[in-house]
Amino acid sequence: MSVPHMREASSSSSLQLCRVMRPDDANIMGNVHGGIILKMIEEAGGIVGTRHCNTLNGDRCWVALVRVEKTEFLFPVFIGEVVHVSAEISYTSKHSLEVQVKVVAENILTGMKKLANKAALWYVPCSLQNADKILEVPPIKYADAEQEEEGRKRYEAQKIERQGTKARLEEAIPPPPNPEEAPKERHTVGFSQSSLIHLVGPSDCTIDDYVYGGVTMKLMDEVAGIVAARHCNTNIVTASVDAINFHRKIKKGCVVTVTGRLTFVSNKSMEIEVLVDAASLVDKEKGRYRAVSAFFTFISLDKDNKPLTVPPLKIEGEDEQRRSDEGKARYVQNKAKRLADKERRQ
Amino acid sequence: MSVPHMREASSSSSLQLCRVMRPDDANIMGNVHGGIILKMIEEAGGIVGTRHCNTLNGDRCWVALVRVEKTEFLFPVFIGEVVHVSAEISYTSKHSLEVQVKVVAENILTGMKKLANKAALWYVPCSLQNADKILEVPPIKYADAEQEEEGRKRYEAQKIERQGTKARLEEAIPPPPNPEEAPKERHTVGFSQSSLIHLVGPSDCTIDDYVYGGVTMKLMDEVAGIVAARHCNTNIVTASVDAINFHRKIKKGCVVTVTGRLTFVSNKSMEIEVLVDAASLVDKEKGRYRAVSAFFTFISLDKDNKPLTVPPLKIEGEDEQRRSDEGKARYVQNKAKRLADKERRQ
Amino acid sequence: MSVPHMREASSSSSLQLCRVMRPDDANIMGNVHGGIILKMIEEAGGIVGTRHCNTLNGDRCWVALVRVEKTEFLFPVFIGEVVHVSAEISYTSKHSLEVQVKVVAENILTGMKKLANKAALWYVPCSLQNADKILEVPPIKYADAEQEEEGRKRYEAQKIERQGTKARLEEAIPPPPNPEEAPKERHTVGFSQSSLIHLVGPSDCTIDDYVYGGVTMKLMDEVAGIVAARHCNTNIVTASVDAINFHRKIKKGCVVTVTGRLTFVSNKSMEIEVLVDAASLVDKEKGRYRAVSAFFTFISLDKDNKPLTVPPLKIEGEDEQRRSDEGKARYVQNKAKRLADKERRQ
Repeated sequence: MSVPHMREASSSSSLQLCRVMRPDDANIMGNVHGGIILKMIEEAGGIVGTRHCNTLNGDRCWVALVRVEKTEFLFPVFIGEVVHVSAEISYTSKHSLEVQVKVVAENILTGMKKLANKAALWYVPCSLQNADKILEVPPIKYADAEQEEEGRKRYEAQKIERQGTKARLEEAIPPPPNPEEAPKERHTVGFSQSSLIHLVGPSDCTIDDYVYGGVTMKLMDEVAGIVAARHCNTNIVTASVDAINFHRKIKKGCVVTVTGRLTFVSNKSMEIEVLVDAASLVDKEKGRYRAVSAFFTFISLDKDNKPLTVPPLKIEGEDEQRRSDEGKARYVQNKAKRLADKERRQ
Repeated sequence: MSVPHMREASSSSSLQLCRVMRPDDANIMGNVHGGIILKMIEEAGGIVGTRHCNTLNGDRCWVALVRVEKTEFLFPVFIGEVVHVSAEISYTSKHSLEVQVKVVAENILTGMKKLANKAALWYVPCSLQNADKILEVPPIKYADAEQEEEGRKRYEAQKIERQGTKARLEEAIPPPPNPEEAPKERHTVGFSQSSLIHLVGPSDCTIDDYVYGGVTMKLMDEVAGIVAARHCNTNIVTASVDAINFHRKIKKGCVVTVTGRLTFVSNKSMEIEVLVDAASLVDKEKGRYRAVSAFFTFISLDKDNKPLTVPPLKIEGEDEQRRSDEGKARYVQNKAKRLADKERRQ
Repeated sequence: MSVPHMREASSSSSLQLCRVMRPDDANIMGNVHGGIILKMIEEAGGIVGTRHCNTLNGDRCWVALVRVEKTEFLFPVFIGEVVHVSAEISYTSKHSLEVQVKVVAENILTGMKKLANKAALWYVPCSLQNADKILEVPPIKYADAEQEEEGRKRYEAQKIERQGTKARLEEAIPPPPNPEEAPKERHTVGFSQSSLIHLVGPSDCTIDDYVYGGVTMKLMDEVAGIVAARHCNTNIVTASVDAINFHRKIKKGCVVTVTGRLTFVSNKSMEIEVLVDAASLVDKEKGRYRAVSAFFTFISLDKDNKPLTVPPLKIEGEDEQRRSDEGKARYVQNKAKRLADKERRQ
């Protein structure tokens, strides 16, 4: 299949990362979890960003993920395939940088390659001496003025969106479902709602002891997958992830609670809201705080990887209705956008 | 299936943890290793205990596992199932706390849930400034005086048992079997005796650089599984684990030697004694010491997960006979206890 | 099968390590990766060496791997088998030590054992206070003067070889292949050339924060396996690894680029050169440097694990021709050596 061309870049601002997919990376049908791909994307972005921000003299730093733009999973990836992740810095503002990432999955036995994913991530450089100090980003060179102007537009657009989501973050988290309670009615929101709890260990963290954004996204995808499987009892895969904003960092030794609940179900897709709360186990004063939230869209597949119809969601109460209406609005908007993109390309 | 009700608890003294079981968590028949379940149980206990012990001002701390009560594996767990671990603090003494844990395995495709395991763990809070300093445990509130009194009885009983096992710990460890020697006669103790060696890395440790009790139990279950498979050459699973006392902590950078040997074989079960010795690689003065020992009981299953008859154990020498007699006594006692519990419930 | 006898050794200078092989340790055909075996070999060598070098008073230390002699994979290992690694110190010079390692794979269901691998590794002890300070190695006792003399000869031989490879290390690394470019012609060097990039995390490192040699070898085997699979599109396994010299250590937080390219293809084998470059993400002054390079030989297997014919390599340009000629010389030399060894044993 044909893969769009990526523009040339200097070696210090681009990077390619690859790994063979293993059984633990996939579900029992052999489909690699979207979260594994998201984690690799973020690792590539973190490396290229950190390398770039340390080219100047001055404080050494590590880049922290602050935002991932909406990303779609174009093709499923399977165990045994080699996944190539290419990352390239595409815009720099004074204190942040954008990395564009492409994921190509290669069957090394047949030689077939497919573009599995494209993503754009925003990072800020944090000083290794003081993680709260944001350093300046060395500017990159653009091919032409138009390229720079497009980047500036993306920068302004995400800045506005990031501020908009802060309010939603404060919403109270639903209590974790108790597996021992009498089961709720099938196909309700409560029936499939799920939580994971993870104690942050050293392998989850950068060298300044903050959790990699990719580790958090992998947990989010895992809980969303459990919600989706509970709702439709079939082989499910991640179809897309709406823009994710990382408002607050998570430190080593924290306990992370990741909760997923269905918000909206269309004929062939499920939208799942995922909320990530963190709390230090030892520092009592900090308390529990919302670190991230995002919407994941899953689809249900039959044995030949063809989409199946999803059972409708039984809505209970005003809050669920409001969230479902909002989800439907996002669904309609995304569908319109996809059509527009398709027409523009023709 | 019905699952007994767990009493309500305040959010800071209870916790729920869950994770999808992956191929690496299971043997080649798809049965999840008992050690994976034990590790999750201990992780949940450690989180809820550490969180509780840091609710007061004063030194920050991490809880160290000192004892796990006898635990039974009620149902096998399989790859792809979601395992839910609920932990709750059920008793606090001045310097220790008891956590009760339940493990529910859920098939998220069929919605079937089964109670896979119940366990009770004892922890003590160790200061992060000085790991040898045991801090005070904030008291919990009990539903009534009877509940507190029952807890106090459990506390006194385990205290006596813990002191009793200290003597046994000093016994010399048998030499590791050499795979290159002429093989011993089948079905003897020597034939199936096995050792694992593990170099403690950062992922095995809490933030104060001591090994998680759950990591040790996972290694113990792994070696016991090798012993059982060598003895009966079939699909084997963990049936139960006798009370385990953790007398001495193990620090990062140590080498851990875990040895398992058959002590007693009944018609349908094998009792395996597991001994854990630790030695620092760099601090010579400390020498090698026994950190833990415990008895694991395994059963052998056919393709439909029905128990198979186990080949009898060929006893050689007085020591093996004594250990087998002691094992038989434990077997008879456990059987009587199970019957009594069953009658009391009816 | 018969396994050659290993000489007796005091407990502080020998060690046995074992582990069950899991799905993630193997390729999709169930063959355990050679890199997993190499990593276990090096872990055993590192433990026995570090333990030995800390028996004296004075600075505490960790041993760093400096060289692995040529090693052959005699039998494939499969998921579910127990791998036993026995390591023993066989020679000590003033500042280095040789560890001989044997790998036995056991099918614990049938009881069958096979000698999977033999290797010899050289280590130097680095002070934990100052990693650039090489300490003295306590001498071991030899069974007789002849044994010591043979060790001295091996020591002198590897010293000469290590100096010879330094020059080759400086060669420029080829650019990483871009998966999005128009595919090159099949069976050329460029078609199968591959790169992996790995960000060094805490689990990859010893307690003094340098990468384990075994972690590096595992990555090298992984990239060589991708190159081999791309060339012949079949189930491939590691047949042997030429001597590897570790000239420079790699520190935590570095990015490691591992590149593999075919150098020579015989009727039934592929020789792949693997180059490892490291660069610190945060320390700019250090720059990128060649840490290791080595030649891996892979073979292609059919469903019954019988060797298949390998497609010939299409050579392009003088450099590829020169590398192929050098590879052919190594191939002829190794074949002659194997024949001579065989005759000597008869």
